[in-house]
Amino acid sequence: MLSKNQLKFVNSLKQKKFREEHNSFTAEGTKIVSELLHSRIKVKQVYASADFLNRISIDKSIESVEVKISELERISSLTSPNEVLAVCEIPSCELNKNELNDKLTLVLDNIKDPGNLGTLIRIADWFGIDSIICSHETADAFNPKVVQATMGSIARIKLHYTDLADFFKKNNSDISLPVYGALLEGESIYGKKLTASGFIIIGNESKGISNHLLPYISDKISIPSFSHFKSAAGEAESLNAAIAAALICSEFRRR
Amino acid sequence: MLSKNQLKFVNSLKQKKFREEHNSFTAEGTKIVSELLHSRIKVKQVYASADFLNRISIDKSIESVEVKISELERISSLTSPNEVLAVCEIPSCELNKNELNDKLTLVLDNIKDPGNLGTLIRIADWFGIDSIICSHETADAFNPKVVQATMGSIARIKLHYTDLADFFKKNNSDISLPVYGALLEGESIYGKKLTASGFIIIGNESKGISNHLLPYISDKISIPSFSHFKSAAGEAESLNAAIAAALICSEFRRR
Repeated sequence: MLSKNQLKFVNSLKQKKFREEHNSFTAEGTKIVSELLHSRIKVKQVYASADFLNRISIDKSIESVEVKISELERISSLTSPNEVLAVCEIPSCELNKNELNDKLTLVLDNIKDPGNLGTLIRIADWFGIDSIICSHETADAFNPKVVQATMGSIARIKLHYTDLADFFKKNNSDISLPVYGALLEGESIYGKKLTASGFIIIGNESKGISNHLLPYISDKISIPSFSHFKSAAGEAESLNAAIAAALICSEFRRR
Repeated sequence: MLSKNQLKFVNSLKQKKFREEHNSFTAEGTKIVSELLHSRIKVKQVYASADFLNRISIDKSIESVEVKISELERISSLTSPNEVLAVCEIPSCELNKNELNDKLTLVLDNIKDPGNLGTLIRIADWFGIDSIICSHETADAFNPKVVQATMGSIARIKLHYTDLADFFKKNNSDISLPVYGALLEGESIYGKKLTASGFIIIGNESKGISNHLLPYISDKISIPSFSHFKSAAGEAESLNAAIAAALICSEFRRR
């Protein structure tokens, strides 16, 4: 049975302001919540059907509330709520630069669409990339739409929000890893020598990589098109940001 | 100035039934409409701002109607209409098997999400794949959401809807090209020998490739994950259908 205060609290977490205030986010569905229950993420409350609570063992430290589907509908962000909603603590991730030294790290410059951000987190997970560094303008990773689109990968990837230009300035003087960025004039990823560690910048969905970050790119790369056609408007064709990221990560890992 | 009949006609095309009845679909925005005006697609009507009509030269055989933004809003499928909406003829594509002989062709088995279908059409275009064969259960490619997600690639890719099992039965006896399908037990795409022609089956977003198509797969492939984590639920992690398709197409083309 859902109390008035619980209803209000969970619904408030749909807004970034309240997620920050309560340092909490929501996740829904049996798959994602099961992942979270077995992850480094601290689950604080579980609102679930009787069936879910009978089936899944939940640690006693977690407040679990049995709810009817009609109650779940009142707190859900989904069009069809799926058995369970969890309230979790937003993990604090210190950005430890030494940890990045021998690793590939994704850097997201101004990714606006929550679905794209979720897919990018899922891609990082698939390709064994532990950390993602986001510009402050990038969508909030704990937005319910992003959490759902990660399909559980949000539990495994460390996310940092920072000023990217500042970050790269320090990278240049401290750890000095290569910085890869996809640009029209870049060298084909299919032929280029790629290192086992470094940063891969993924630019905004329509504007690409911000001008003020260009000076920090040490390795310009590009994804060749095999299209038989030229765009009528003479504009360059482009790939969706998540597709481009997947193709680049695949090239780094397949070697 | 938009007439009542024009308003009714254009809005009817949001439904598949009326798209079929009138053999017409809509496309919106300066980029996509410009692509269509220079493509094999027959544009029948253009509803556009005075500014667009002054800027872009439109053939006299095309009915062009100057509309205000408030009128465009009444026929648009977008949240923010963008200068122009075109009504185009759905192209008739005969499935000529001889044409497929020395080519790669994408086969979409039950792709339900219009955004995914649009992205898949865009990926085919990027990788120089001319034809896509869709199961009858796949979303309608001329749905406005699909058209917009293709970013203009809808003008260049030939789309066929057919019964896939029947199609592969005939393929076995006629042209006999290899049929690639991504399956858990498949051989890694990074190591496998890939041919320059054949079919690549992309399965449904949540269920994968349909059971009744499995007997037609001659080459089982898989995309290796480099994740450091195992899914808590013991479930196999998966990639979004469009991401998987892009990674597979890239491997075929990079060789």
